Amino acid sequence: MSRARLRNLGIKPGKMPTGTYNAITDVPGVLVGQETIIQDDQDSQRVARTGVTMIVPRDGDIWNDHACAGFFSFNGCGEMTGLPWIEESGMIHTPIGITNTNSVGVVRDALAAYPMVMADKWNSPPSISSSWAGSLPVVAETWDGWLNDITAFHVTQEHAFKALQAARSGLVPEGNVGGGTGMICHEFKGGTGTSSRIVPYQDRDYTVGVLVQSNYGNRDMLRIDGVPVGRELDFTHVANPWLTSPKGGSIIVIIATDVPLLPTQCTRLAKRATVGLARVGGTGQNGSGDIFLAFSTGNHALSTSQGFLSMDMLPNDHLNDFFDAVAEATEEAILNALCAAETMIGWQGHRVEALPLEDVQRIMERYRPR
Amino acid sequence: MSRARLRNLGIKPGKMPTGTYNAITDVPGVLVGQETIIQDDQDSQRVARTGVTMIVPRDGDIWNDHACAGFFSFNGCGEMTGLPWIEESGMIHTPIGITNTNSVGVVRDALAAYPMVMADKWNSPPSISSSWAGSLPVVAETWDGWLNDITAFHVTQEHAFKALQAARSGLVPEGNVGGGTGMICHEFKGGTGTSSRIVPYQDRDYTVGVLVQSNYGNRDMLRIDGVPVGRELDFTHVANPWLTSPKGGSIIVIIATDVPLLPTQCTRLAKRATVGLARVGGTGQNGSGDIFLAFSTGNHALSTSQGFLSMDMLPNDHLNDFFDAVAEATEEAILNALCAAETMIGWQGHRVEALPLEDVQRIMERYRPR
Amino acid sequence: MSRARLRNLGIKPGKMPTGTYNAITDVPGVLVGQETIIQDDQDSQRVARTGVTMIVPRDGDIWNDHACAGFFSFNGCGEMTGLPWIEESGMIHTPIGITNTNSVGVVRDALAAYPMVMADKWNSPPSISSSWAGSLPVVAETWDGWLNDITAFHVTQEHAFKALQAARSGLVPEGNVGGGTGMICHEFKGGTGTSSRIVPYQDRDYTVGVLVQSNYGNRDMLRIDGVPVGRELDFTHVANPWLTSPKGGSIIVIIATDVPLLPTQCTRLAKRATVGLARVGGTGQNGSGDIFLAFSTGNHALSTSQGFLSMDMLPNDHLNDFFDAVAEATEEAILNALCAAETMIGWQGHRVEALPLEDVQRIMERYRPR
Amino acid sequence: MSRARLRNLGIKPGKMPTGTYNAITDVPGVLVGQETIIQDDQDSQRVARTGVTMIVPRDGDIWNDHACAGFFSFNGCGEMTGLPWIEESGMIHTPIGITNTNSVGVVRDALAAYPMVMADKWNSPPSISSSWAGSLPVVAETWDGWLNDITAFHVTQEHAFKALQAARSGLVPEGNVGGGTGMICHEFKGGTGTSSRIVPYQDRDYTVGVLVQSNYGNRDMLRIDGVPVGRELDFTHVANPWLTSPKGGSIIVIIATDVPLLPTQCTRLAKRATVGLARVGGTGQNGSGDIFLAFSTGNHALSTSQGFLSMDMLPNDHLNDFFDAVAEATEEAILNALCAAETMIGWQGHRVEALPLEDVQRIMERYRPR
Repeated sequence: MSRARLRNLGIKPGKMPTGTYNAITDVPGVLVGQETIIQDDQDSQRVARTGVTMIVPRDGDIWNDHACAGFFSFNGCGEMTGLPWIEESGMIHTPIGITNTNSVGVVRDALAAYPMVMADKWNSPPSISSSWAGSLPVVAETWDGWLNDITAFHVTQEHAFKALQAARSGLVPEGNVGGGTGMICHEFKGGTGTSSRIVPYQDRDYTVGVLVQSNYGNRDMLRIDGVPVGRELDFTHVANPWLTSPKGGSIIVIIATDVPLLPTQCTRLAKRATVGLARVGGTGQNGSGDIFLAFSTGNHALSTSQGFLSMDMLPNDHLNDFFDAVAEATEEAILNALCAAETMIGWQGHRVEALPLEDVQRIMERYRPR
Repeated sequence: MSRARLRNLGIKPGKMPTGTYNAITDVPGVLVGQETIIQDDQDSQRVARTGVTMIVPRDGDIWNDHACAGFFSFNGCGEMTGLPWIEESGMIHTPIGITNTNSVGVVRDALAAYPMVMADKWNSPPSISSSWAGSLPVVAETWDGWLNDITAFHVTQEHAFKALQAARSGLVPEGNVGGGTGMICHEFKGGTGTSSRIVPYQDRDYTVGVLVQSNYGNRDMLRIDGVPVGRELDFTHVANPWLTSPKGGSIIVIIATDVPLLPTQCTRLAKRATVGLARVGGTGQNGSGDIFLAFSTGNHALSTSQGFLSMDMLPNDHLNDFFDAVAEATEEAILNALCAAETMIGWQGHRVEALPLEDVQRIMERYRPR
Repeated sequence: MSRARLRNLGIKPGKMPTGTYNAITDVPGVLVGQETIIQDDQDSQRVARTGVTMIVPRDGDIWNDHACAGFFSFNGCGEMTGLPWIEESGMIHTPIGITNTNSVGVVRDALAAYPMVMADKWNSPPSISSSWAGSLPVVAETWDGWLNDITAFHVTQEHAFKALQAARSGLVPEGNVGGGTGMICHEFKGGTGTSSRIVPYQDRDYTVGVLVQSNYGNRDMLRIDGVPVGRELDFTHVANPWLTSPKGGSIIVIIATDVPLLPTQCTRLAKRATVGLARVGGTGQNGSGDIFLAFSTGNHALSTSQGFLSMDMLPNDHLNDFFDAVAEATEEAILNALCAAETMIGWQGHRVEALPLEDVQRIMERYRPR
Repeated sequence: MSRARLRNLGIKPGKMPTGTYNAITDVPGVLVGQETIIQDDQDSQRVARTGVTMIVPRDGDIWNDHACAGFFSFNGCGEMTGLPWIEESGMIHTPIGITNTNSVGVVRDALAAYPMVMADKWNSPPSISSSWAGSLPVVAETWDGWLNDITAFHVTQEHAFKALQAARSGLVPEGNVGGGTGMICHEFKGGTGTSSRIVPYQDRDYTVGVLVQSNYGNRDMLRIDGVPVGRELDFTHVANPWLTSPKGGSIIVIIATDVPLLPTQCTRLAKRATVGLARVGGTGQNGSGDIFLAFSTGNHALSTSQGFLSMDMLPNDHLNDFFDAVAEATEEAILNALCAAETMIGWQGHRVEALPLEDVQRIMERYRPR
């Protein structure tokens, strides 16, 4: 069976409608670029199954026009650079990179370098102020060392630049792409996934978009819309040896929205990714880096501002629908990653199976209410 | 149908075994005392549906022999006193009280007073050191102002003392008792609930126990073992006006274990209550005080210590089973509160229905896999 | 020598000008009310040297028109209720009370009760929304058990109400008043102190005001404008036995400003109280509750808001002068408490000396540069 | 005048004795390695004034034998990688690197690579467990872009490896070395500085050692042992244009001790660096990355541990002397950096003056008490 998105299987978690592409790119101005690195060098035996994913807010103008942001570390056996400055300033100032554990540094420095060394493809040319704002960039990781020869340090500055330059709106490739290339999720092939929700408020619609790099969890915990799919699938596949790896899987969740929020409210949104993760079967295992970042493009903070910045704040007691949107979109983004990712053979012949979609549909049918 | 515990309905969430009483009191030395206040004064129209619940670690010796502790605020529209000192010292020094929102202060001061003014029923007599250690006690709340005339401030020091003195091991009354008396959960009658899990490690068994005061959530979000019970029940009962109340419901989760943990590890356990809550249908709504506290009795910190305290630390990479235990026991404790609580009529004739257990069983049956 | 304010001694720490009253009340709309409880009941031997201080933002309209806020716990051996909701909402919703350790509860419940049970002296009458917003009030403490019979629990709801109703603008009594009545600071008589700074920005002046309840520290650490006054005074007075008390002193710092800030920025201001405290000689001792709260009246968050709240945000890179103002005003507020407080004899005949101002001036003169 | 250490000038801040070398290396097993990069390539005009400093705990065995750790971000306009895992695990698992802002990534990836790719000079050979533990390393930064052509990205993996391999005990070169090469502090030449304190407890002596990379502050705020040296020096030098740089200076403080502490206690030590910084004149300016990390070698956490780890915990109420030691050693380490650093001319001919030690002594003399 070819791969799909979750909704192609007739499964629709939650109650809120999705955006046009059911992707983080439904949030206006949010672009995604991915660089996938798949190499099989038989001489060096240096097998690559890795890559870089870039989320670029404001069509790339984020270096000059910062956005309110907040984060939550549900389990911190992972890395996301730039957190002290997000916490202090309440803002993100750069695109957000996601890659493998050992390549956080090179991608981080590449993001710092980009506005200084590149002729920018976006309308915001490099400037002194943007170059400094860019010097504390945000790069997160999950570990792909089962399928990828992670000790080969494949990722270069050029890969990071390519991912940035590939950033665009519209459909987002899912599964074995970008930073998600070598991921494993609930013991099936994981990877990049995305989803979105539309939240009406007052007289207009706002969008909450989520992108995950999904690389965590045990098979028997996997649930789809409440159905214990993983438990049912549990005996149909052999146990996987990577479960004994001390550095367990991780999940990075990036949440974007265009509703105007303050930094503290972004933090609150980030926390709700935990709910979506828990619904699918995540528990924040010790070796997992479950770090969630939320940003809002609804307010603008130009780096050259004088006087006072004007911010709109959604009253706190209207946040609940946005919380629900984060939970639903996170849940669906993880499942989209699982549905899209194809079986992969990688480093040392390690093989990870794709989630068997026909089996999943069969199980879902068995659990259909009478 | 009379009330029950969840397992009496044949529903067993999770995969781990429970302790003897399936209660927080399965953790050796952890006592629970509850004082329920139900009054209907027709003259004053001051209707009481409230109370106090006390969790007493170490058979009451906690004032002298402190225990490692940590907490997590999933959504902070609530109160738990004593948090700065827990965060700083990594310890709890007193029993833990739970009551209604407006009575946090009186119960807090009562806990501060208790070791000074009472002839202690426990083996630890009042002392200067214990009296000071007791001056920053831990008291949490949820709001019962729909069923209880909360503006009457019914709770007194005497109620708090009675709850302390009633503390005992063994079965814990659930539902409309103690601080949980006037609670509402997923629009049904909520209250006090408890559950436990046994975790084998090395050559012995450890216990994780959870007690909740459960007072949150929308009906359509309620799930039992993955089944969307609340959605199915959604049209069988009228909408409840308290949903428009600005201070939404809350949930306090107290987690106890006898496995030796450091303070940072208790914080990690506290975070996993979020997973159990999310499984049942909680999302941390804006007006909800979802604050979770975990303590470990496995290490001892006598207030008179000299030299160095000897602590055992479970290696971090053996925490996962304890994380799962917290998630499972929290999930079941909430459901136990719902199953135990009876329909209540309270202040101004407000009525909240008990969870209809026969309907629940009927729905669970419909969702049983073929 | 009669008591004074620091500036009356010719000592002016820092470089920024003060407001009219050199007090937290220089921030427009910020009121301070204090109720001092001094009793010597020879029969009961229940000696009172305690009280309640209330800081009332927005001329009392804070229950309806919330203000951005943030806090920092430099050392958490203390209590400040309401912190989870401040952290979550980014707002304060009530006046702020300060009292002794054992009376936090009664003052906290009194603040919760006030908008429900009192005919309000301010223009904002009680309402359903304000009553709920008021149910998570902010009350902090320091320990006065050396001079005050703290186990007598002298403070009542009535004292708290009186302090609220006494709230006014203008000069703030300092030293042995309100919550500061029984305080000890650097082994001299401490208490309530206040100071303010004017910060020009763009085309107008903003005010930063600080009020402290100062009850911490060793004598030999005391510095005034860099001069080691405490070390010089160290041998002129006998060692004080309260230093062996396990619950050391504490300092509560409340920071108010009218410059429009976001919640995250209030947190940053709160942190800078640490700088002022360190300049005077504080180190955040283990038994000290050094908890700092900052709020900004420059933005408005009406509890009934629809649509979006409009917030102004001072650009982060213009915060430095406000940081300096917090540090300077905290430093001076502590010293004002020391200069104002008079020698006190209290419970069990315990005596604490006032800071000897003539000696201080003599020492300052000795350290005057040539 | 040739350069010196502060004590060579007869200035001894604080009251506690120093260790043998008055350096972080006084803590047994703590090594420091530094690689200084000074280049003047006239063709490329790529001027280098930068480097890498490595703090290596446990004589390099830290990859296998982790140490309790905690951190505090006083102002987060900076970077320190690895913080989520320190917060979660309560441990550090790798050496600690410090370099310039733009080179955090390359040094971070180098630290991740080191145990995998190098024949280790220490007794702990590379292993699977150490390689994964090393994959979330700790690297901090401050910005040297006034004296160093930071956009040239001079630092390479090789530099990081050299700094690691140069790590040794004993005297630590200060001033313009390692990561501190291009630093500016209080408008004078800053850099690397170190100091230590001996703390007797029970029947033996413990050591607290501090190393700073000091790169912050305005000249007029500089104080030495309370004397406003910066204000007195204020008019003897021209204003420096880097003050208009949006990314202000920063200070990284690394604190080591051999007293057995729990992770929460390390966090408390880290906070006390704020006191030392405030004494010298730091205020945590908006553009400053003031991030402090403390670790204790007194407890051991082998990566292969089974059963329970045995930890000793200093009782919290004996921490005060260690708090004082951190404050004193931080204060002196900053001043040592200033005293050691020599006048430097760097990128684009920018020149930063050394602290004029004779002027300092003259001023100190003027403020000497009569």
